Amino acid sequence: MNLRSDRPLSWMPAVENTAKQLARLPGIGPRMAMRLTYALLKRGKQEIGDLIHALEQLRDEVRQCSSCGNFAQTDPCIICQGVGRDSSLLCVVEQPQDMLALERTGKFKGVYHILGGALSPIDGIGPDEIGVTKLLHRVKAPIREVILATNPTMEGDATAVYLQEILKEKDVKVTRLARGLPSGSDLEYADETTLAMALSSRTEL
Amino acid sequence: MNLRSDRPLSWMPAVENTAKQLARLPGIGPRMAMRLTYALLKRGKQEIGDLIHALEQLRDEVRQCSSCGNFAQTDPCIICQGVGRDSSLLCVVEQPQDMLALERTGKFKGVYHILGGALSPIDGIGPDEIGVTKLLHRVKAPIREVILATNPTMEGDATAVYLQEILKEKDVKVTRLARGLPSGSDLEYADETTLAMALSSRTEL
Repeated sequence: MNLRSDRPLSWMPAVENTAKQLARLPGIGPRMAMRLTYALLKRGKQEIGDLIHALEQLRDEVRQCSSCGNFAQTDPCIICQGVGRDSSLLCVVEQPQDMLALERTGKFKGVYHILGGALSPIDGIGPDEIGVTKLLHRVKAPIREVILATNPTMEGDATAVYLQEILKEKDVKVTRLARGLPSGSDLEYADETTLAMALSSRTEL
Repeated sequence: MNLRSDRPLSWMPAVENTAKQLARLPGIGPRMAMRLTYALLKRGKQEIGDLIHALEQLRDEVRQCSSCGNFAQTDPCIICQGVGRDSSLLCVVEQPQDMLALERTGKFKGVYHILGGALSPIDGIGPDEIGVTKLLHRVKAPIREVILATNPTMEGDATAVYLQEILKEKDVKVTRLARGLPSGSDLEYADETTLAMALSSRTEL
């Protein structure tokens, strides 16, 4: 048998298939996928079994909260259930991970709304794709303030501007996360946009 | 309920567990593991199922070839079965991936021996851990030449020196992969060791 150099794994479909599946994940290229596959093999059946079990749980037990759009194991999710949360304060984020980041600060006690993305016409993501109608339905009493916590990127900013516009008809305060120098950063290495923003939004001491 | 900032996922064990399992893989930190977990969730049950299926195949169908130590779906593996391969030429590599890299060149038609690692006393990896006895048993007729293709690193070189020493008692030629400038590289940016090696191993034209 002559192994073709461009398909050295055709005789190992199980390895090839695992690497292919892993390479579909963001940030994992074909080479890393292969390294991960071999790392799993090297650690043995037990460890592969642990990962399979975790993935089965993930597939079978996690669903989207029908209220905020977050992934959760209960519906409504534990935050939307609202015990100990201020349901007058709604924080709009792009992704579930953004919510986790805000939770880690321990400073936000309101509730969340997860858009699932940001407006990006070039990728075909318009208001319908990020569920704007659902958000509009949700913004009513007891909500008093909507914090637009989309990412400080072009898409995130465009989304915030758009949401601010359509939220005007609602009787709520609309705010946006502050922009400026990140803590622990160095003025010398700050990019111009950030520095300009920090300057124009300077606060009085 | 008050979400503890250091454990924002304690209420989502399935997500937490998947991220934990993924973070055990090399090159995947906790943050990337979480990103991968959410990427899987976002793509849906079908895609998680595909990955589970691939992992099940990997766990249940891949074993180690009892001859060369490579992972394979048959035992002996297709290379050790030897059709179209020169079984007088044995190439010793550290990892299965190294074998794949050599196969991709399409220039090697011999057989392989996979050590599963390199000598590294600091990590407790000695001759027993890399199966030196098994290699010694294997080096006999029809094998005429052993190519030491361990990595050009400190551990790989130490392993090659060690193997060369113990292979002296065998009636085989022992060779090592050439060291020098990699193709397509730039002399200006070559590290000193590589350049010194390229100089001392210069070939006559």
